[in-house]
Amino acid sequence: MSNKPTWIWYPGDFEVWLGNRFNNRRTERGSMFPPFWKQDAHWPTVEFTTTAELADDEDISIAAEGDYNLAVDGKLQTDNRIPQGRHRLSIKVWNQASPPALFVSGRSIGTDDSWLTTYEDKIWIDENGVAHGAGIYVHAGSWNFDSPDTPPSQYRLLRRQLLPVGSEPIGPSDSHDGSDVEAATGMLYDFGREVFGYLILTRQEGTICVYYGESREEALDKAHCETLDILRPGHRQPQSKAFRFVYIETAPDGRYADVLMDFEYAPSTAAAPATAAAALSAVSPSDPPAASGSFRCSDPLLNRIWEVSAYTLDLTTREFFVDGIKRDRWTWSGDAIQSYLMNYYLRFDTPCVRRTIRQLRGKDPVTAHVNTIMDYTFYWFKSILDYYQYTGDTHFIGEMWPRMVTLMDYVLSRTNSEGMAEGRPDDWIFVDWTDFPMHKRGTLCFEQILFCKALETMDACQRLLNSRGDTAPSAPPHQNYATLAASLRRRIRSTFWSKEQQAYLHAVEDGLLLNTQVTKFPNMFAILYDLCDNEEERQQILHNVMLNPAVAPITTPYMRFYELETLARMGRHDVVLAEMRAYWGGMLGLGATTFWEKYVPSESGLQHLAMYGRPYGKSLCHAWGASPLYLLGRYFLGVSPTKPGYEEFEVRPQLGDLEWMEGDVPTPRGLIHLHIDRHQARLQAPAGHGILCLPDGQKIAIEAGKEAVIDYNGK
Amino acid sequence: MSNKPTWIWYPGDFEVWLGNRFNNRRTERGSMFPPFWKQDAHWPTVEFTTTAELADDEDISIAAEGDYNLAVDGKLQTDNRIPQGRHRLSIKVWNQASPPALFVSGRSIGTDDSWLTTYEDKIWIDENGVAHGAGIYVHAGSWNFDSPDTPPSQYRLLRRQLLPVGSEPIGPSDSHDGSDVEAATGMLYDFGREVFGYLILTRQEGTICVYYGESREEALDKAHCETLDILRPGHRQPQSKAFRFVYIETAPDGRYADVLMDFEYAPSTAAAPATAAAALSAVSPSDPPAASGSFRCSDPLLNRIWEVSAYTLDLTTREFFVDGIKRDRWTWSGDAIQSYLMNYYLRFDTPCVRRTIRQLRGKDPVTAHVNTIMDYTFYWFKSILDYYQYTGDTHFIGEMWPRMVTLMDYVLSRTNSEGMAEGRPDDWIFVDWTDFPMHKRGTLCFEQILFCKALETMDACQRLLNSRGDTAPSAPPHQNYATLAASLRRRIRSTFWSKEQQAYLHAVEDGLLLNTQVTKFPNMFAILYDLCDNEEERQQILHNVMLNPAVAPITTPYMRFYELETLARMGRHDVVLAEMRAYWGGMLGLGATTFWEKYVPSESGLQHLAMYGRPYGKSLCHAWGASPLYLLGRYFLGVSPTKPGYEEFEVRPQLGDLEWMEGDVPTPRGLIHLHIDRHQARLQAPAGHGILCLPDGQKIAIEAGKEAVIDYNGK
Repeated sequence: MSNKPTWIWYPGDFEVWLGNRFNNRRTERGSMFPPFWKQDAHWPTVEFTTTAELADDEDISIAAEGDYNLAVDGKLQTDNRIPQGRHRLSIKVWNQASPPALFVSGRSIGTDDSWLTTYEDKIWIDENGVAHGAGIYVHAGSWNFDSPDTPPSQYRLLRRQLLPVGSEPIGPSDSHDGSDVEAATGMLYDFGREVFGYLILTRQEGTICVYYGESREEALDKAHCETLDILRPGHRQPQSKAFRFVYIETAPDGRYADVLMDFEYAPSTAAAPATAAAALSAVSPSDPPAASGSFRCSDPLLNRIWEVSAYTLDLTTREFFVDGIKRDRWTWSGDAIQSYLMNYYLRFDTPCVRRTIRQLRGKDPVTAHVNTIMDYTFYWFKSILDYYQYTGDTHFIGEMWPRMVTLMDYVLSRTNSEGMAEGRPDDWIFVDWTDFPMHKRGTLCFEQILFCKALETMDACQRLLNSRGDTAPSAPPHQNYATLAASLRRRIRSTFWSKEQQAYLHAVEDGLLLNTQVTKFPNMFAILYDLCDNEEERQQILHNVMLNPAVAPITTPYMRFYELETLARMGRHDVVLAEMRAYWGGMLGLGATTFWEKYVPSESGLQHLAMYGRPYGKSLCHAWGASPLYLLGRYFLGVSPTKPGYEEFEVRPQLGDLEWMEGDVPTPRGLIHLHIDRHQARLQAPAGHGILCLPDGQKIAIEAGKEAVIDYNGK
Repeated sequence: MSNKPTWIWYPGDFEVWLGNRFNNRRTERGSMFPPFWKQDAHWPTVEFTTTAELADDEDISIAAEGDYNLAVDGKLQTDNRIPQGRHRLSIKVWNQASPPALFVSGRSIGTDDSWLTTYEDKIWIDENGVAHGAGIYVHAGSWNFDSPDTPPSQYRLLRRQLLPVGSEPIGPSDSHDGSDVEAATGMLYDFGREVFGYLILTRQEGTICVYYGESREEALDKAHCETLDILRPGHRQPQSKAFRFVYIETAPDGRYADVLMDFEYAPSTAAAPATAAAALSAVSPSDPPAASGSFRCSDPLLNRIWEVSAYTLDLTTREFFVDGIKRDRWTWSGDAIQSYLMNYYLRFDTPCVRRTIRQLRGKDPVTAHVNTIMDYTFYWFKSILDYYQYTGDTHFIGEMWPRMVTLMDYVLSRTNSEGMAEGRPDDWIFVDWTDFPMHKRGTLCFEQILFCKALETMDACQRLLNSRGDTAPSAPPHQNYATLAASLRRRIRSTFWSKEQQAYLHAVEDGLLLNTQVTKFPNMFAILYDLCDNEEERQQILHNVMLNPAVAPITTPYMRFYELETLARMGRHDVVLAEMRAYWGGMLGLGATTFWEKYVPSESGLQHLAMYGRPYGKSLCHAWGASPLYLLGRYFLGVSPTKPGYEEFEVRPQLGDLEWMEGDVPTPRGLIHLHIDRHQARLQAPAGHGILCLPDGQKIAIEAGKEAVIDYNGK
C-alpha cells in the first residue's frame, strides 16, 4: 500500500511498446526504416493484484489504459467499494494498442510496484468445482507516471523552441541534385550546432522541400542527404530529425514565413539552450541538472572535449540511449553499454538505463542475438553487472533474471563442441568497423572473452539473488554458470594465448588456430574483463599489442573507448591524454559540435562525412564518441564504486600532465566533488565509505558529508 | 503473381488479434471477463516480399494497415514504380494496434498467399559491408479481404434486424431482485427462440436496466441473471448478448419506444430468420447456404433434433467456433474439435475451422496447455488430422507444423519417467463434468490415449510434409513421433488394461494402478482412437463398459458425442437412435430451442437451468449439444472421406429403425446427396471416387456427377 499511487504495467511491456515507436521512427530519405530484428509486443491482457487490509470500507478510483474489471477475493464487482478486512484485489486490463496500465487510488490502497502482475492466471477448476490458480506473478513495472491524467501511453520527451542562428540564400550553383532540372533556389538555415527535434515553418502553404544536414554540404546535396521532408498540401508536419543545417526549397505554390524548431530532449539532460544566442555562445549544457557530473581542468582543450562529449551524450539520451540521432536512431546493445557507463559520470539517468536494457532484451522466445549481433548479446549481460555496481539496485536484477536465463539458454544452445560461441550463418559477428582486413569466420577469441564475462555475470547475479532469498519465481532450472565460466576461461587461454607473440590471437577456423592475426580487440578485453590473471601477461599485452605501432590502429571511437580504458587501467594516463587531445581534439579542429561515429585523422574534406558507401552516411553525433566523459570521470577524477551503489567507493585521482582538475561524479546518494592540484586534494562525498588514494600513496578514509582537505606530494 | 489481389498478413496474426477481441467480449453481470490463459499479440513489424518478373515498368498501388515502406532489390523507394525485369519487392509494415496488413495491386503484381513474410529479416553486414539476410520466411496469411477498402481490421459478422414475437408487462411480484427495494415494474420481451446480437431500444433516454435470459426465469431474476446492461445517459449501447427473453426496467428518467435487435451471424450460416414471424414458425434455418448439409427422415422427432442441432451450431459458429454464446464466449479446444466435426456435415465452413485452430494455438513460447487443459492440447492436435482428412488441405498443415512442433515439445518436456503425460500442479485435467466421484490425480489412462493420438498426428503430418518435400522451413529438429507413439501405445495397454475387468482402468497414482475405477471415458476413446487392435477387446469394452448400466452414466452432451459415436462405430445404431430420442428429445420436450451444455433427465424445473453453483449458470445454447449433426451424417447417412479431401469416400448408410432418410453432406467438391429407404438407395456425388456400401453387403462404385439408383434388400 502506498500513499503515492502511480501507473503500473507488466514489467518490460512499456519499454517494448515505446521501443517499437522509437525504433520505427528511423527514416531514410523519407522512407520509414524499421529494424532488422524481431520486434515484440506487450501482453494484451494483464492481471494486477494486491492484498489489502482495511480497517473500514474503502472506495477506490480506477483509471486504466484499456477495458478492465475488478474482482475482490475472486468475485467480480459491480462497484468500486472494497469492504473492510483482508481482501485480495484483482484487476484485469485488456488493451491491444498500448500496454494495459492501471492507476488505482483510495484512502489506503494505491497502485505501486509492490503490486503483482501476470499475463496468465492459469485458473483451473478441479473435480469439486473449486478454482485453482497457478499463474506466475511478478512485481508490476512502474516509473514516475504519478497522476491518473498522465498515463504511460502519453509519454513524451520535453520540447523547447529554438531559432536558427543564421540563414543564407542559395543560388542554383550552390545546391546539387544530380539532375539537370531547371535549378530552383532556396534558403539555408544554420542552427549553430547539432540539434534534434521538429522543424517548424510558420504560415506554411503549398509544397515545400526540406533537406536536413549535419553538415552544410549534406543539407545542400538534395540528391544524397540522408533525411528530408517533402511537405505537400495537407501532408503531415515534419517528423523529428537531427541536423545543424536545413536547406529549404519551395515549389511555385509553396511559401512559409519563419523557420524555427522544437528542440526535443530528455528531462535528465535539460540540454536545450534557452535561446538561439545561447546556442551560439556555448556548447556546454545551459542548465545542467543539479545532480549532474562535471569536469574542469587546466587544459581548455580537454574542457571543450568534455563539454562536447556531454552534449553528444545528452542528444543521444532520449526515450532510450540511442547510437546516433541522424540516421540509425535504433537502440544497439554495444553502443548502449558505453552510454550507460558515460551516463554514470554525467546524468546518472538510471531509468533510461533500465528502459534501454529492457527494450534491447525484448521478450521470449529468443530467436536471435540482441540486435542479431553475438557480441551485443554478451554486452547486454555485462551491462547488468555494471548497472548493479553503480546503483546497487537488486530489484532490477530480480526483474531481469528470468530473461537473462532464457537469453543465456539461447547462447548455450548454440555453442560448439568446445563450449565456445562460434558464429552461425544467421549470427552477425561485429567486433568493430575496421579499416584493415579482419575476417570474422570461425571462433573468435574476442567473442569468447565477452562470452566468459557474460557467464560470470550470470553467476554473480544468481549468487546475489540466492543470497537474498530472492530468486525470481519464474526462473527455469539454473545452469552452473560459475563452472561454465571457469572452464571457458581456461580454454580461451589454452587456445588463443601465444607465448611466442605474447598476445591473444584472432580465431580458430575449422578446428585449428589458423587465423593468427594480432589485433587490439581480444587483447584489451583480456585486461578489461579480467581474463589475464598475472601482471606479466598484462604488461606483455600492453607493450606488444596496445603500444605496438605495428598493430593496426583502431579508428572508431567505439573501440577507442576500450583501448583508452585499457591504457588507463595500465597506468598510461599520459598516453590517454595525448590520444584524447589528438583524436577528439582533431574532430573539434574540423568544427565538430558533437562527436562522430568514426574519425580517421588521415582523411580530409568530404571524406570525413562519408560512411557505408554513402557521401553523408556517417553519423556526426554518435553516443560512442562521448567516451571522454567516462574516461575522465573514472580514471582521472578516479571515482568508482567498490561496493554496489557506492556503499563503498574509491577516489584515485590521476592528473597526468594537468596542473589541476575538479569535478563532480553523481552517485545514488548525491555528488562526489573533487578538486586536486599538484599539492592538495579536496574531496566531499555525501554518503558511503570512501577511500581517497593519492598519487603519493596516501590512503585516507573519507567522512561522509564533510570536506576532506589533504596535502600530498604531487612531484 | 495474381489477377485477384487480396489483403495479406503474418499467418496466424489476424486470428490472434481477432481472438483477443472475441474472447475479451465475455461479461458476467456487466463486468468484462477475460480468459485465464495467456493471450498473445501480433508481430508489430512484418516484412512482405515477392519476386516480380516484369516485361514493362509497372506502377503499383499500396494499401497498408500501418506505416510502411517499399524496397526494390533491397533499396528503399520514394515512388511506387517497379522497373521492368526481375526484382525482389519488400514491403515492411508496422502497426501495434492491429496486425500489419498489406494490399498491393498492379497490372501483374498483386498480394496473395504466394507472398512470403517474416517478423525478422535478420539482416547483418559482413566485414566487406555486404548485407546478408537470414530471416525465416513463411507464406503470408490471407482470406477473402479482396478489396483495398475492406482491410482485415474492419472484419465484422453480418447483421439482420429482428423484432420480438411477444411482450408482457411484469408486475412487482413477478420479478425477483433479492432485495426489499420498492418494486419497479417492467416489460418482458420474447424473441421466440435463442438469438444472439445487439438489443436496440429506439428513442432511448435516461437510465434503462436490461436483464437478459436464455429462459424466462433468468430474465426476470434481476439479481442472478448472467448478463445485463445498465444503460445510463451517455453510456454505450448494449453489447452483443445471447438471449431469448429480455426484461427491461426504466428508472424514473428512463424511457424508450420500441425494442428490436440486430441479430449477428456468420455468413456461412445465413441462419437469421428474416422476420419475427419466421422466428416463431420455424426453428430450422430459413435460408441455408446452397452447399450446406441436410437431413430428413421418417421420424419427425429426429428431424426436429437435427434442425435444432443445426441452429445451435449456427449460433455458435461466429468469428470462431465458440462453446456457448451466453456465458463463456471463449474458444475452447475440446469443444471446438466437436464443432469442426459437426461443421463438416453442416456448413463445411473451413475458414472458421482454420481460424479457430490458429487462435487456440496462439504463439510461442508455449507456457501452458491449450486453454490450460491437458486434454485440450491433445484434441488440438487431433483436430488437425481431422481437418486434413475432410479437406485434403496440405498448405494448412505446412503452416501449422512449426507450432505443432513447439507445442509437442512442451508436452514432451513434461512427461513423467514412463513417458506418460501426468498432470502437473498448473495443468487442468478436465475429461468431463461428471455427476459421480472421479479423481483426476496421477496419470490418467484417458489422457494417455489422447496423447498417443496426438503423437500419431505428429507422425502423420511429418510424413505428409516430408513426402511433399514441404517440411516447413522453420521446423526445429524433429522427434521420431512414430516411435514415441508406438511405445506409448504399448505402455497404455500393459499399464491400464485389466483382463479381469475387461476394461481400461482409470489412473496410476504414485507409480501404482491404485485407481481402478472403470469409466466410459478411456474405454470409448480406446475404440475411437484405435488403441484396441482386436475385435475381441472392442466387444469386451462394448458390453462390459459402454452398455453396462453399472458404469456411471455420462451426463454432458460433450462426452455423449464420443459415447454415441463409439456405439455407432460398434454397429449399435439402434441404441444411438434410442438415446438420441430420449436425451435430445428430452431437451426439446422441456422447450429447448437450442441444445444445452448439460442435461440430466432426472432433474426437474429450475434445476435444468443451474450449473457451477449459479441458478442460471448453465448455457442453453452450447455447441457440444449439436452432435446429432455429426452422428446422423457420419453414421446414418454414413458419409466419410477415406482419402483426404474426399478424393475417395465411402457412403455406408444405416437406417436403424427408420423407414427412410435423405440428406446432403458437403465436401470440398460439392454436396453428396443420398436418399435411402428399405428397398432402394439413390446417391449422387459431384466428384471423387465413392463406394456405396449397402446394408445387404453390396458395394457399388459411384460415378461422379451421375445419380446412382440401387435396389437392395433392406429386410
